[in-house]
Amino acid sequence: MLEHTRIARYDKKRVVIIGGGFAGLELAKHLEHADVQVVLIDRNNFHTFQPLLYQVATAGIEPSSIVYPFRKIFDAQKNFYFRMAEVQAIDTQKQIVETSIGLLNYDYLVIATGATTNFYGNQEIQSKAISIKSIDDALALRNTILSNFEKALQIDDADQLNSLMDFVIVGGGPTGVEIAGALSELRKHVFPKDYKELDFVNMDIHLVQSGPALLKGMSDKASKKALEFLQTAGVKVWLNSRVKSYDGYNIMLDTGTRLCSRTLIWAAGVSADFPKGLEDAIHRGRIAVDAYSRLKNHPNIFAIGDVASMVTDEYPDGHPMMAQPAMQQGKTLAHNLRRSMAGKSMKPFAYNDQGSMATIGRNKAVADIRILKRDYKTQGFKAWFVWMFIHLFSIIGFRNRLIIFINWVWSYITYDTGIRLIIGGKHENVPVENATEKVVV
Amino acid sequence: MLEHTRIARYDKKRVVIIGGGFAGLELAKHLEHADVQVVLIDRNNFHTFQPLLYQVATAGIEPSSIVYPFRKIFDAQKNFYFRMAEVQAIDTQKQIVETSIGLLNYDYLVIATGATTNFYGNQEIQSKAISIKSIDDALALRNTILSNFEKALQIDDADQLNSLMDFVIVGGGPTGVEIAGALSELRKHVFPKDYKELDFVNMDIHLVQSGPALLKGMSDKASKKALEFLQTAGVKVWLNSRVKSYDGYNIMLDTGTRLCSRTLIWAAGVSADFPKGLEDAIHRGRIAVDAYSRLKNHPNIFAIGDVASMVTDEYPDGHPMMAQPAMQQGKTLAHNLRRSMAGKSMKPFAYNDQGSMATIGRNKAVADIRILKRDYKTQGFKAWFVWMFIHLFSIIGFRNRLIIFINWVWSYITYDTGIRLIIGGKHENVPVENATEKVVV
Repeated sequence: MLEHTRIARYDKKRVVIIGGGFAGLELAKHLEHADVQVVLIDRNNFHTFQPLLYQVATAGIEPSSIVYPFRKIFDAQKNFYFRMAEVQAIDTQKQIVETSIGLLNYDYLVIATGATTNFYGNQEIQSKAISIKSIDDALALRNTILSNFEKALQIDDADQLNSLMDFVIVGGGPTGVEIAGALSELRKHVFPKDYKELDFVNMDIHLVQSGPALLKGMSDKASKKALEFLQTAGVKVWLNSRVKSYDGYNIMLDTGTRLCSRTLIWAAGVSADFPKGLEDAIHRGRIAVDAYSRLKNHPNIFAIGDVASMVTDEYPDGHPMMAQPAMQQGKTLAHNLRRSMAGKSMKPFAYNDQGSMATIGRNKAVADIRILKRDYKTQGFKAWFVWMFIHLFSIIGFRNRLIIFINWVWSYITYDTGIRLIIGGKHENVPVENATEKVVV
Repeated sequence: MLEHTRIARYDKKRVVIIGGGFAGLELAKHLEHADVQVVLIDRNNFHTFQPLLYQVATAGIEPSSIVYPFRKIFDAQKNFYFRMAEVQAIDTQKQIVETSIGLLNYDYLVIATGATTNFYGNQEIQSKAISIKSIDDALALRNTILSNFEKALQIDDADQLNSLMDFVIVGGGPTGVEIAGALSELRKHVFPKDYKELDFVNMDIHLVQSGPALLKGMSDKASKKALEFLQTAGVKVWLNSRVKSYDGYNIMLDTGTRLCSRTLIWAAGVSADFPKGLEDAIHRGRIAVDAYSRLKNHPNIFAIGDVASMVTDEYPDGHPMMAQPAMQQGKTLAHNLRRSMAGKSMKPFAYNDQGSMATIGRNKAVADIRILKRDYKTQGFKAWFVWMFIHLFSIIGFRNRLIIFINWVWSYITYDTGIRLIIGGKHENVPVENATEKVVV
């Protein structure tokens, strides 16, 4: 039998937040002066700044620069309690969260569990591809990329060699575009110096996108410029193409094209990740909420961020699964909880879309930005500079900001990246049957 | 059947170096202008600056700051080849190294495989203690320390709680002393802020040393001052004590004392780590070499660094297993190989002892330094400053140096460390039978 967790009870109401991503973090911060006990549960002891995971995966920055310990963020917040735990289920009747470390009562419950990689039910791809939703994923990808070249040094057979040196990225959203861009930079400036024995004419970077354009949701101009930047950098972009199967070596597209790679990077989609016990609230794979982020039939349960679907006229499928709506929902909910406890009416959430961006490489990015209700669309150096500036100042912690800044300036000046290390996260390539790894003296 | 590795052969002689620690690295660097092909083999793709492993283990700096990719170090060295591989054996008859990636011929072979943790044959301790000889070890220790406190939050039973909050370090050399000091700093400045629900009066740090003094090999003054610094910081030092047994919970000392901890940190000794096939050269656990680092009966095989034992009048047991002799032997051997190939006679190795140091905490270190044949013994702030300066400038890479410097300055000003993350390396505490992990709401 599960026992209760050991968090002191006060006469204050307890708000339990499940998940310390952008949404949960903003909510917890903005409850600092609320007369409640805030309990944050996360499976990690740190917040991850997901927009820069791709730079960890491509050896540009160290993992510790984009994560930040929850306990340190909330050192000074007296009503805050953290527990590192996995949530197993919600008992809405008893108002209890069942976790890996025990039971936890709640007065208010906020689901901010975010999203996980969506393989659209394809088990084969799921077991063999690499996704990039967590620090562990990013490290596994970094180690795989570097290990591939170490292995390639021992291979004579041209097909086997190519399968190690080629990379296939699935998904033409910001993550897919940014990884493809970063790999092409490495191919140009870094790998040939490190692996002088390999011929990098042999290294192909493929980007597979199901739709007719990259960066869906951004402006036409941004999509077209991103495609142009990638193609100029030598990335092979396959539009209107879906991956049908992957056996660890052969990648079959629905267009009939066959690509070969031991590394399939899956950035093709996300799906909401929610605990058991809320089945009655699920609508099209996300938790349906009203304009106050509240679940139908559960007036004291809320959902914010990627996991929540708040249907509005402007967003009939809910808000985009991105950092901005998540942060804004977290902040709004904090205010609404305080208003509600003070006997005031809650205010409906209104999303302030500030636009989006993606970086393709050195001096190359695309940005659709909305400031003070005016739209700015820019591509190239200016967009790249804005991208860097905004990401740098979104990172938590002055120390992290400084270290990322140094890494970026360093890489910019030297055309080099420092973190080409095979440490930590593992992903085993699928050994291919009948592969002849012929090696000579 | 093993095939040969795929490294191009030239008409040049091939020098194979096994191990890229301090000795192997210095040797390879100083062979830059020699008319040979240099092949370095290491199980990692990076060099590790071992003297700062303890800071990674105690959440002070990120692992990427103290490691450096071999390929990057040697980017510009044309005669250098690297292979990431495990060495299985040496065939001295055929002049072949058997590795995990194939066979490798050599003209000259240099064993620079260093040392591994010495558990003095105690299997029980080996399976349950944490050592700190590698980055993986250091990360496992960091994660264990932090996970222990996360677990402690759920424990009511006083004995169980103490076993999670107490740490026992075995070995009073620099590593043991430095870890004890760093833990006491964390106990004073960091952990109580992070874990407000725990009472850090309950956190004991024990340091167990077999001999009558700490920092054997350093001056009496240094040993005494280190003891004083540690005791003032609240570390319980057990001199003249050896660990007899450890079941994952109870630590029995040969003096009859029993300590309890789920975390036993083993820094009690090292033993040389050498490949098979050199049995005829082993003397008292190390590879016996002459004054030219050459193996008896094998004129083209050499051993340098921790693995080698060069008996001299001053060092009847061989040189100390430390960075300085390793680096000097590497450099001397490079010169001797070049002299030998030029038909000149080799020069015998002469160790220039520059002294040693250990840091205990903020503003506290001990240093016995020898510069230009003069001895300087200093303790306290000055020693601490010298320690920092020398370590900072010994780190490879300007970027690493800058980032470590920022981390140190940051920690010094804020009394805080940034890397309190549970990521990567794992070590499972031993679950104790009949442990009552009682938890309440």
